[in-house]
Amino acid sequence: MLSLLDAIRPTTIIEPSKLRYHLGLDITIVSETFQHTGSFKFRAGYNVAINVPNDSILTASSGNFGQAIAYACKLTGKKCTVVMPETSAKVKIDAVRSFGATADLIDVAKIGRAERVAQLSEEMPEAYIASPYDDEFVIEGNSTLGDEIADRNFDAVIVPVGGGGLISGTIRSFCRSGVMTEVIGAEPLLGNDASRSFKAGELIANESEPKTIADGARTVSLGSLNWPIIKYGAKDFIEVSDEKIAEAVKLYFGLVNLKSEPTGALSLGAVLENRQRFDGKRICVIVSGGNVDPDIYRNLI
Amino acid sequence: MLSLLDAIRPTTIIEPSKLRYHLGLDITIVSETFQHTGSFKFRAGYNVAINVPNDSILTASSGNFGQAIAYACKLTGKKCTVVMPETSAKVKIDAVRSFGATADLIDVAKIGRAERVAQLSEEMPEAYIASPYDDEFVIEGNSTLGDEIADRNFDAVIVPVGGGGLISGTIRSFCRSGVMTEVIGAEPLLGNDASRSFKAGELIANESEPKTIADGARTVSLGSLNWPIIKYGAKDFIEVSDEKIAEAVKLYFGLVNLKSEPTGALSLGAVLENRQRFDGKRICVIVSGGNVDPDIYRNLI
Repeated sequence: MLSLLDAIRPTTIIEPSKLRYHLGLDITIVSETFQHTGSFKFRAGYNVAINVPNDSILTASSGNFGQAIAYACKLTGKKCTVVMPETSAKVKIDAVRSFGATADLIDVAKIGRAERVAQLSEEMPEAYIASPYDDEFVIEGNSTLGDEIADRNFDAVIVPVGGGGLISGTIRSFCRSGVMTEVIGAEPLLGNDASRSFKAGELIANESEPKTIADGARTVSLGSLNWPIIKYGAKDFIEVSDEKIAEAVKLYFGLVNLKSEPTGALSLGAVLENRQRFDGKRICVIVSGGNVDPDIYRNLI
Repeated sequence: MLSLLDAIRPTTIIEPSKLRYHLGLDITIVSETFQHTGSFKFRAGYNVAINVPNDSILTASSGNFGQAIAYACKLTGKKCTVVMPETSAKVKIDAVRSFGATADLIDVAKIGRAERVAQLSEEMPEAYIASPYDDEFVIEGNSTLGDEIADRNFDAVIVPVGGGGLISGTIRSFCRSGVMTEVIGAEPLLGNDASRSFKAGELIANESEPKTIADGARTVSLGSLNWPIIKYGAKDFIEVSDEKIAEAVKLYFGLVNLKSEPTGALSLGAVLENRQRFDGKRICVIVSGGNVDPDIYRNLI
């Protein structure tokens, strides 16, 4: 069985000449779109799979974590069940199934994800329940991405935020390496719980699942393990309108040849929301994943 | 001024787990979509710009070579004129102009590209006329891509073919390194002059510019410098239907998160034409570039 560092694919670092001219900014892209299963979540999923003693893993995920843990379980010979809203992107449901995992589709108007996980957990008491973000193995797995860019002397790294798994992993990595790079969260304006929490200094949840096009960030709240790391380690949050998310996806397509999913484009969207703020800075935008349905993508480009 | 090897961006190597499962093949993708200006042509363009003594460069290109040499001239402080059909996609004209080059737009119904280049050459006798493929500096520049993958022990590398610049560069690289990897050309069925030439053992041209969706391979003939290298160094050619090119673009989108232009997808298209041939082999498909108009791409995915 491969170690975490041997199993993950190194991230893809792009110095985008056309985008740099277009924005007039010293911007570097760190893309996880070519990571196994198409998003950074494989780092977390694999770290869970190799570290828990359980033979089966149960999770709730709108998509990328589901694929990631399904593939990690395939590689490590474990059983896997992923609770997903029946409205999840079809490519994501298909991918979970293609790795041999069970996709348990629910109508979120009738049953919450956590509730369904609890139900299934009673049926499979031996299964490890993995949160896509609120889990020590997840944060640790995600921290490997920060490690890959820790020595690049960026002034700021901008990270898409849903449940807070990637940003907390990035902060952890930079803290342990003594890296002074600022870590800025990029969150959909339509689901700005992390930003509001950060400003208030206390964990605030959205009233319901936000309707943003950034489907990977439709989380109600940051995780309880992620929140303290973010509270003390993040520099700031930028709220990104769906319009700027869409514009970022289009810029990646047109100027970088990069296929990003809307959630992955949150970090560039944050730059578009406030370009002047980054004038003269060496900034890095993390593209968390690339999995997007063709029908949605067609409309964005 | 940067050396060629310092100026180019290393290629992006992707080991695509989902595509491997889908095809049941040991396939590796070598993608030039993130090269400067979005295609391998920057390797050639920059090598021309740093090696010719002329202060200005003149070329005819409706696409990737025009952008590449325009950017190379910007980096090296040279003047650049690119003859382009006035019907070229606006994004491509804009890209050439954004790098400070002159886009000389012609009505191809009234004057041929070569004719216009000859006219301009009389007006600017000091300018170096650069062919996108039929040029020693171009072949040498392109050979750097072969060098980057020479030590990977592939059984076969499949290369998109238009004028033959990339495949002749790849063969040159492998020959000088003593690499035994087979080099296979992937050419549009609708413009199969290289394949027919290879089988006949003599250079054959298409009657007119082929109408394939692979717009980077709408060449009438291989270059005179490329042909002897290909004749003695290529292992084989595979003719790829436009349907398989389109299928390859769609597979890259859906399973790899890779935005490829149709010409770039020729090599995967060649695999789709004859999957069994590559059973049990370690194969590499080169994706030559990623620049494609959104309207065309929408229909392909």
